[in-house]
Amino acid sequence: MVTSAVVNTYPLSSYTFGTKEPKMEKDTSVADRLARMKVNYMKEGMRTSVEGILLVQEHNHPHILLLQIGNTFCKLPGGRLKPGENEIEGLKRKLSSKLAANSTGLQPDWQIGECVAIWWRPNFETIMYPYCPPHITKPKECKKLFLVHLSEREYFAVPKNLKLLAVPLFELYDNVQRYGPVISTIPQQLSRFQFNMIHA
Amino acid sequence: MVTSAVVNTYPLSSYTFGTKEPKMEKDTSVADRLARMKVNYMKEGMRTSVEGILLVQEHNHPHILLLQIGNTFCKLPGGRLKPGENEIEGLKRKLSSKLAANSTGLQPDWQIGECVAIWWRPNFETIMYPYCPPHITKPKECKKLFLVHLSEREYFAVPKNLKLLAVPLFELYDNVQRYGPVISTIPQQLSRFQFNMIHA
Repeated sequence: MVTSAVVNTYPLSSYTFGTKEPKMEKDTSVADRLARMKVNYMKEGMRTSVEGILLVQEHNHPHILLLQIGNTFCKLPGGRLKPGENEIEGLKRKLSSKLAANSTGLQPDWQIGECVAIWWRPNFETIMYPYCPPHITKPKECKKLFLVHLSEREYFAVPKNLKLLAVPLFELYDNVQRYGPVISTIPQQLSRFQFNMIHA
Repeated sequence: MVTSAVVNTYPLSSYTFGTKEPKMEKDTSVADRLARMKVNYMKEGMRTSVEGILLVQEHNHPHILLLQIGNTFCKLPGGRLKPGENEIEGLKRKLSSKLAANSTGLQPDWQIGECVAIWWRPNFETIMYPYCPPHITKPKECKKLFLVHLSEREYFAVPKNLKLLAVPLFELYDNVQRYGPVISTIPQQLSRFQFNMIHA
């Protein structure tokens, strides 16, 4: 774990991007996704998922790396922990699965930093809250967002069915329609950090 | 400075509330406020203001103490730093001015904790952002929100023209119409903390 109020941010141009085999979504609809969540909950209890906030800079403004599926839906890289899996190790595994080359020599040394937000899903529904609502004793999912401190150089391999976008904070802010409640409030959650914009 | 991922939260009923002389607002309109901000900026440069998030619990859910002016407008306790004043000392001074008895023996020992958000005012206007927008080299105000770790017992003296309210996170969340962008996203900024609800 790395923690600091100052976050070094490198230019998007200092990273290299390639592609790898597609990583298909496990579900083809929201209804399928909620049904699978229910089946897994019966077997394993509350789902814990972890997602990474990877920062780069362009024009002296922080940008976040998002994976785009199709033409509209964007998500943070990450995913569901295995039962009992450590959060930090699980996030590293998920980041590698989504963004690293298959060759072990090219794996980034993921530096997982601060937890910046925790969201709760009270029911088998799409709505989540940044607290466990009163009277909910058995939440169905807990999603944790972590800062990932990138090195100056990295090689990312992006699954062929996804696009990796660098989205500026000013585009995310107050844009719940496009990015949803979790991603659109990342600017507020990052506001306490001082970004040290490093130029190439 | 106190920092911890676990925040002890005591029942509202363990605190005692009294009143003291009114603290009138310096401005009677938004236009007056922005005009005074401009005059002060010419004299002293960027305004830095500090505000405190004071947490209590009721029904096992965190509540935030807000000062209500008139029947609608709510604000966090805090205010503007003097030029060169230390943030932590300045916040303690402001909290005492807004919430402590005048007698020095009854002053709470304010424990200022984590900075949870920073907001920027690019122009002499009401709108603020949780980042300094691109191309803004001379922001007019920087507002910092800090967690304040309350002891189990405190006596608060509330100015007679204000009401002190304990507002639950679920009331603030997604309620920008009533509380504005700064206060309505406090639940997201606090989501990373684990609240240790202590019962009396």
